[in-house]
Amino acid sequence: MYPTKVEVTEVGTRDGFQNEKIFIPTEKKIDLINKIVASGVRRIEATAFVSPRAVPQLVDASEVIAGINRVPSLRIACLVPNHQGLARAIAAEVDEVVAFCSVTESHNQTNLNRSIEESIEGFESIMKSAEKTHIAVHGALAVAFGCPFEGDVDPSHVASLVNQLYAIGIRNITLGDTTGMATPPLVDRVVKTIQDKMPDVKISLHFHNTRGIGLVNVLAGLSAGISRYESSIGGIGGCPFAPGASGNICSEDLVYMLGEYGIDTGVDLLSLMHCAHQLQGILGRALPGQVMKAGLRTRTFPLSAVKRATR
Amino acid sequence: MYPTKVEVTEVGTRDGFQNEKIFIPTEKKIDLINKIVASGVRRIEATAFVSPRAVPQLVDASEVIAGINRVPSLRIACLVPNHQGLARAIAAEVDEVVAFCSVTESHNQTNLNRSIEESIEGFESIMKSAEKTHIAVHGALAVAFGCPFEGDVDPSHVASLVNQLYAIGIRNITLGDTTGMATPPLVDRVVKTIQDKMPDVKISLHFHNTRGIGLVNVLAGLSAGISRYESSIGGIGGCPFAPGASGNICSEDLVYMLGEYGIDTGVDLLSLMHCAHQLQGILGRALPGQVMKAGLRTRTFPLSAVKRATR
Repeated sequence: MYPTKVEVTEVGTRDGFQNEKIFIPTEKKIDLINKIVASGVRRIEATAFVSPRAVPQLVDASEVIAGINRVPSLRIACLVPNHQGLARAIAAEVDEVVAFCSVTESHNQTNLNRSIEESIEGFESIMKSAEKTHIAVHGALAVAFGCPFEGDVDPSHVASLVNQLYAIGIRNITLGDTTGMATPPLVDRVVKTIQDKMPDVKISLHFHNTRGIGLVNVLAGLSAGISRYESSIGGIGGCPFAPGASGNICSEDLVYMLGEYGIDTGVDLLSLMHCAHQLQGILGRALPGQVMKAGLRTRTFPLSAVKRATR
Repeated sequence: MYPTKVEVTEVGTRDGFQNEKIFIPTEKKIDLINKIVASGVRRIEATAFVSPRAVPQLVDASEVIAGINRVPSLRIACLVPNHQGLARAIAAEVDEVVAFCSVTESHNQTNLNRSIEESIEGFESIMKSAEKTHIAVHGALAVAFGCPFEGDVDPSHVASLVNQLYAIGIRNITLGDTTGMATPPLVDRVVKTIQDKMPDVKISLHFHNTRGIGLVNVLAGLSAGISRYESSIGGIGGCPFAPGASGNICSEDLVYMLGEYGIDTGVDLLSLMHCAHQLQGILGRALPGQVMKAGLRTRTFPLSAVKRATR
């Protein structure tokens, strides 16, 4: 049995935008986020408080947060790599910060220039500082289903890192499939290994569609009882190792699929599709999302729409 | 439990090519088909014997068939809309002909300019002629999961058409999701409605990825015990109602997914990916396939491959 409700976290304006070379005007980011929220999304990883030198696209993180309509039950999350990021997130009055590290040393070194042990110490310190505020700390583990440098990752190693986050009080943890190496059997194994040891950890799944099976992996997650998924509007994002490959799973396609299973996301699909079209206009290129091109499946056409259909 | 073996039918050189405006040289078609066969594919819907005026791209159907290496256990199938097509298919010595109609009157009229009843009469006549040869007749029903003109289609109506094909002796029948309206719950309903009434019908599923959930629909098919799927190399093809939308599910992505479930397809993924790259060179544009861009999931990179990875 699948969950009857699923929470979709929009990550496109963080995970997608960080890959965009041309600066997107702040007011366009804010307007898009507000329309995504208006479509019914209630958790959004809106931006990241990272070094503007490393990711110039997200230099306006504080202004973006300030522009979001704080509708009831909305949770605004932001990625923070360190204490400087946390301080900016606190000042911006976000609802959640996402502290992250990789499950392999090589990826963590490449991404964050520190060891996993140092990252975990940073998590502890972030937890302590956040405790004095109303801000929740969400953990995220990158390359949880495979590492582009080290290949396969042992599920029990992932579970041991989840356990380290658990030990310092983090209960909401995202498993990130950073470069699209997750497969349904692997999702099942990793999730169950964690659930067996820590049944009260709330797992979110963050899939990329790099190898075309992102939504199939969601199905594996649903089968394992997971009801939290992260996706990006229009399917934006990418993979530094696979030029031209898709990025995150696409929010509209995810909401469409879940809706067809009768799973409640609280999101209005048509409104979300409008957001994807708006983003397509902003970026000026076709996006990977499919439902945004095809329209609702209930859409019918006059007989005159084509001279000749095809089988 | 999923089937342990799956037969993948390549349809890209028929369903994909019929959408290509610029003529692909016959020798390039033949070379691609032979490489696809060399990768392990053992059933291929290579081309169609349709009116060259309607589909100029497939004018060379006889020469294409003549050029295929007839390796052991290979079955070459061709689409035939009528008796003229059948005569050409017999002359070309194909192994199977695919007779097809739509499950809705409006789509059948638009596509074939005749009623469903007239189509079924044509099937009978094709069966009679084929009986005198070694050629098998495979049936195919278009818009089986929804029609772009009429919307939803009642699963029992689809089953009644399967029953009409069954009554004239057709045992292998493809359900075509012509415009990408299939959803996993619908696949389950349609397949089970047919299986309940005609347990010995061998169902093939032909999905399009128009709305991004083509491979999820395959999973629904696997759950219902279906072990025959049709797909196109590189994910070529399209939808006349959705400009820019994806076409058929992608053969390499399908083979990759099935392989990760431990399901035997007999196809070498890397060889099939080479075919997709070859086709990309022929068509001169990026194709929708994902694995062809990302590479095998076991592929690793040197640390120097990126300056900075991303979560």
